[in-house]
Amino acid sequence: MINEIYDVIVVGAGHAGSEAAAAAANLGSKTLLITMNMQTIGQMSCNPAMGGIAKGQIVREIDAMGGYSGIIADKSAIQFKMLNLSKGPAMWSPRTQNDRMLFAEEWRIALEKTPNLDFFQDMVKSLIIENNRVAGVITSLGLEIRGKSVVLTNGTFLNGLIHVGDKQLGGGRMGEPRAFGITEQLVTLGFESGRMKTGTPPRVDGRSLDYSKMEEQKGDENPKNFSYLESPKLTKQISCHIVYTNETVHEILREGFDRSPMFNGTIQSIGPRYCPSIEDKINRFAERERHQLFVEPEGWRTVEIYVNGFSSSLPEDVQIKAMRHIPGFANAKVFRPGYAIEYDYFPPTQLNHTLETKLIENLYFAGQINGTTGYEEAAGQGLIAGINAHNKVHEKEAFTLSRDEAYIGVLIDDLITKGTDEPYRMFTSRAEYRLLLRQDNADIRLTEKSYHLGLAKEERLIKVQDKIAKSNQLESFLRDTSLKPGIINPILESISSAAVDQAYRSAQILTRPNMTLAKLEEIDFIKEATQHYSTEVKEQAEINIKYRGYIEKERDNVAKLSRLETIKIADDFNYDNLKSLSAEAKQKFNKIRPKTIAQAARISGVSPADINILLIYLK
Amino acid sequence: MINEIYDVIVVGAGHAGSEAAAAAANLGSKTLLITMNMQTIGQMSCNPAMGGIAKGQIVREIDAMGGYSGIIADKSAIQFKMLNLSKGPAMWSPRTQNDRMLFAEEWRIALEKTPNLDFFQDMVKSLIIENNRVAGVITSLGLEIRGKSVVLTNGTFLNGLIHVGDKQLGGGRMGEPRAFGITEQLVTLGFESGRMKTGTPPRVDGRSLDYSKMEEQKGDENPKNFSYLESPKLTKQISCHIVYTNETVHEILREGFDRSPMFNGTIQSIGPRYCPSIEDKINRFAERERHQLFVEPEGWRTVEIYVNGFSSSLPEDVQIKAMRHIPGFANAKVFRPGYAIEYDYFPPTQLNHTLETKLIENLYFAGQINGTTGYEEAAGQGLIAGINAHNKVHEKEAFTLSRDEAYIGVLIDDLITKGTDEPYRMFTSRAEYRLLLRQDNADIRLTEKSYHLGLAKEERLIKVQDKIAKSNQLESFLRDTSLKPGIINPILESISSAAVDQAYRSAQILTRPNMTLAKLEEIDFIKEATQHYSTEVKEQAEINIKYRGYIEKERDNVAKLSRLETIKIADDFNYDNLKSLSAEAKQKFNKIRPKTIAQAARISGVSPADINILLIYLK
Repeated sequence: MINEIYDVIVVGAGHAGSEAAAAAANLGSKTLLITMNMQTIGQMSCNPAMGGIAKGQIVREIDAMGGYSGIIADKSAIQFKMLNLSKGPAMWSPRTQNDRMLFAEEWRIALEKTPNLDFFQDMVKSLIIENNRVAGVITSLGLEIRGKSVVLTNGTFLNGLIHVGDKQLGGGRMGEPRAFGITEQLVTLGFESGRMKTGTPPRVDGRSLDYSKMEEQKGDENPKNFSYLESPKLTKQISCHIVYTNETVHEILREGFDRSPMFNGTIQSIGPRYCPSIEDKINRFAERERHQLFVEPEGWRTVEIYVNGFSSSLPEDVQIKAMRHIPGFANAKVFRPGYAIEYDYFPPTQLNHTLETKLIENLYFAGQINGTTGYEEAAGQGLIAGINAHNKVHEKEAFTLSRDEAYIGVLIDDLITKGTDEPYRMFTSRAEYRLLLRQDNADIRLTEKSYHLGLAKEERLIKVQDKIAKSNQLESFLRDTSLKPGIINPILESISSAAVDQAYRSAQILTRPNMTLAKLEEIDFIKEATQHYSTEVKEQAEINIKYRGYIEKERDNVAKLSRLETIKIADDFNYDNLKSLSAEAKQKFNKIRPKTIAQAARISGVSPADINILLIYLK
Repeated sequence: MINEIYDVIVVGAGHAGSEAAAAAANLGSKTLLITMNMQTIGQMSCNPAMGGIAKGQIVREIDAMGGYSGIIADKSAIQFKMLNLSKGPAMWSPRTQNDRMLFAEEWRIALEKTPNLDFFQDMVKSLIIENNRVAGVITSLGLEIRGKSVVLTNGTFLNGLIHVGDKQLGGGRMGEPRAFGITEQLVTLGFESGRMKTGTPPRVDGRSLDYSKMEEQKGDENPKNFSYLESPKLTKQISCHIVYTNETVHEILREGFDRSPMFNGTIQSIGPRYCPSIEDKINRFAERERHQLFVEPEGWRTVEIYVNGFSSSLPEDVQIKAMRHIPGFANAKVFRPGYAIEYDYFPPTQLNHTLETKLIENLYFAGQINGTTGYEEAAGQGLIAGINAHNKVHEKEAFTLSRDEAYIGVLIDDLITKGTDEPYRMFTSRAEYRLLLRQDNADIRLTEKSYHLGLAKEERLIKVQDKIAKSNQLESFLRDTSLKPGIINPILESISSAAVDQAYRSAQILTRPNMTLAKLEEIDFIKEATQHYSTEVKEQAEINIKYRGYIEKERDNVAKLSRLETIKIADDFNYDNLKSLSAEAKQKFNKIRPKTIAQAARISGVSPADINILLIYLK
């Protein structure tokens, strides 16, 4: 039926699959995207939002490379917020709330507009393997579709098992069938597979909530975009709301613990540590009197509401009884109860940096199949898998990103060198070069690379080159321009900074705490020189000047880390004394008791920051 | 979890379920709509179009009653066409092509805006029955939800079995799980159940088609709406295309017949006669050299195309090989192959006119579960079931429509008095009063009735009362106004109609063939009197005057039919001699050999028109 031999076959059309298909097709590969249901391309399975801390940076990186996630998120955004603006620029993290239906529709339309990309609706049951190399797929209809490479992005669908209390239902998402066959075949081929667990909260009828009892969280006054390309700005936005659980809620939830598949042994697999179910939070942090919930609208027009933070696999009656004691939820009507889902994954240590499997040539894995959680993590892997599937088939060089180039590089390096035994989520703390990996400079870091790869279009290159040139210009101006005491001292005084008694370069003045470029622009001849630069250019120059020192210090630390990797740790070392150590690192160190810093660093979930803390103590 | 005792619980959120839920809730019933997947509310499972011959009339009737199908179809329309304009007004049939995704979204938003209506996502596994009365449902999560009445609208989901060639997959639609439990329980309770079959054609990539080889079918130049309320008119439309199969296509399809589940005995159940698979058409009409296909776009933005008329359950390789020999399809890329689906239905003779089951009180069936096919037929039943579930629970009178009031009346009367052993589809020929049941007067027939019921809003009543008053005014004017020969003869001459030699009333002149109100308006004082009337009012007055005679004649025929029902038919009567008899009637008469006209008339699929033909011959 399908006689074409594809260059790249992508299995699954979620965030990973869609990015993989788009990348391979845009690079020129004859690409086929196979999905079980063409109506569900680009579904947001969990909360209706993109980005957030560290994740927003990934979306910006994907966009800088010419991927679609940022553009789709912009087009379907109902709110934009730059998180962490009170912290340094390494922490600034863009996030959109999205219209769930529109997000999926925009993905589908974007993919349809992608050249070289075909679609087919069917379930892949197995792979065609010839001489340890993948050669296509076999579908549930019995179709053999030939392809030179295959990217598997099966999400939660492989042998998906849904739990609500003591009920278990086969499915890939609630109301959708699961997939089977692939895991069994891969295990026969020598792959190691495991089970992971994730969950989703109840969704409720917004008309039944009393928002006056919650705290409103509006979008930014001047909303930005994910995409470095011109996108229309949001002219109206919808608010989210913040609310907290309380002891009564916890008490009711606790009454259901004996019927919880999490606690009665039914679910053995491990869920996402940083996105735990509400029962897990209550259980692990028994001392906490309340937990924050984030009440997210599902779209421009729908009344459906996503109760982020209340993920649960408790019996639905317990979920709802407890929920009705949350302020504003007294009359909450539930559209869909929360549930947990277990699914197959393949420990990612079985992959190369290109996301190609070590065992089967030209076979790539991306997304939850690699043990990650999160749309952005999935999309980033999809992009890299799609690029490499294309490059391999066309006998081009492998394409990888290093830890100092991108969060995507950190993500994949973590996965394949450390593996993960629980759903892996990105954090800024996982990146040792996080001052380099900012959301504002993803284009500077990646667009030219991607352009040479053939993925980012010239339009993007021109934009970023212009941004670089202008920010260099502005930096030079600021480094070259002296400010006499009579001019700068009034401004220094206004920010309670010590006066100067001789002329200083503007750039030097700018490095002072609380000093900003906007402040310097109070000086007429500075203002005259800067006024023609865009906000992005000014921001870039300012960050480059203000944070240069920190970045260099960070690079030194990294160099030290590599030299000091053989330092031994005593068997009875007391990690609990190290207050700044993350809870996760403490738990893992206590359990695994690493013998050296090197070993400690390889443990999944242990961050370079944790290692730094250990080092400081051990020295 | 759900403590509320609902007045009406509707199971399924397709066309039938959505109309049932909207009607019951709008009437004031506390209503719950349960669906397996809230993302698939209001799905068009088959072609992306609403209305058409006889079906368009049903949509207009639903709208006149205050149902939603017309409004949703208008909002999501990408093309409008009034079919059969060259025939009499009884045959005029509105049809829209629709954006599939937008149609579903508009349904969902409309339902969310309906007061008294709650939603829940889950699969209903069984009914709670107490003393032969339904008292609620039990879901796959084990929830007991209490309700005073239940409307089942399960579509193709009950034990759905999908066939593609020799492959069989459980499912309610491709890529969606099936439902189970309800049939088994109902059979235990004494219900008779059966299996039906329907099918859907392949969907293809519009970018791979060559439209220059097809015939374009544009929408109307002045597109109208389904809804009698003000709706925005379409300002742009997308074309469909017409193309034909040929002997090569048929030959290739025939080669796959031994692998066809239709012909090798795998599928035993009967499919829709008037929407047969392409293999069925080739098999049954072997003499036909070609079959028409209707190439329908799936929406404003998507490239997906629905190949109406090419429904097939042949193996996918055969479907595609054959398709590529259709003009313009040489390079067709398939998104989803066609398939057949078998599902449970309950012979509708087990129902009352209210669509309540005879066996279990307060239990209602609507849509494909009653053996019908078609969105419009389903929606019409849903409306009636929703109304009656509400009325019963609130101890109000049953609400039914008779055969002379609405196509919906014909539909339900046919179903419950004749039953059906194949998917029942509406035709104008099924209605013996079809000159009364026009698309232009559904508001006049039904809106006041529905207003008194409490469903149609006052806005609708005022509009229709105004239309009636003005059309009566205009009719009176035309009946009272004489036209002298000197004035009317030039116009009569222009349409080659015989001149008059004395004054005639305008109304009398209007009854002449080819004479129209527009023609009469060439007379200045007529134009002056009519110019303030809307198109709808003028059309109404004109039809009332021109067709009065026909309508009265039709009523006479009906009276005769009832008197002559005992006429005997010889055992060896040769039906093949009766050329005007429908193919379906001929086949059924030859098989069943009815002994009397009465018996003949009760056979499913035999229309009053067929009986008339028999009568004329036997007299």
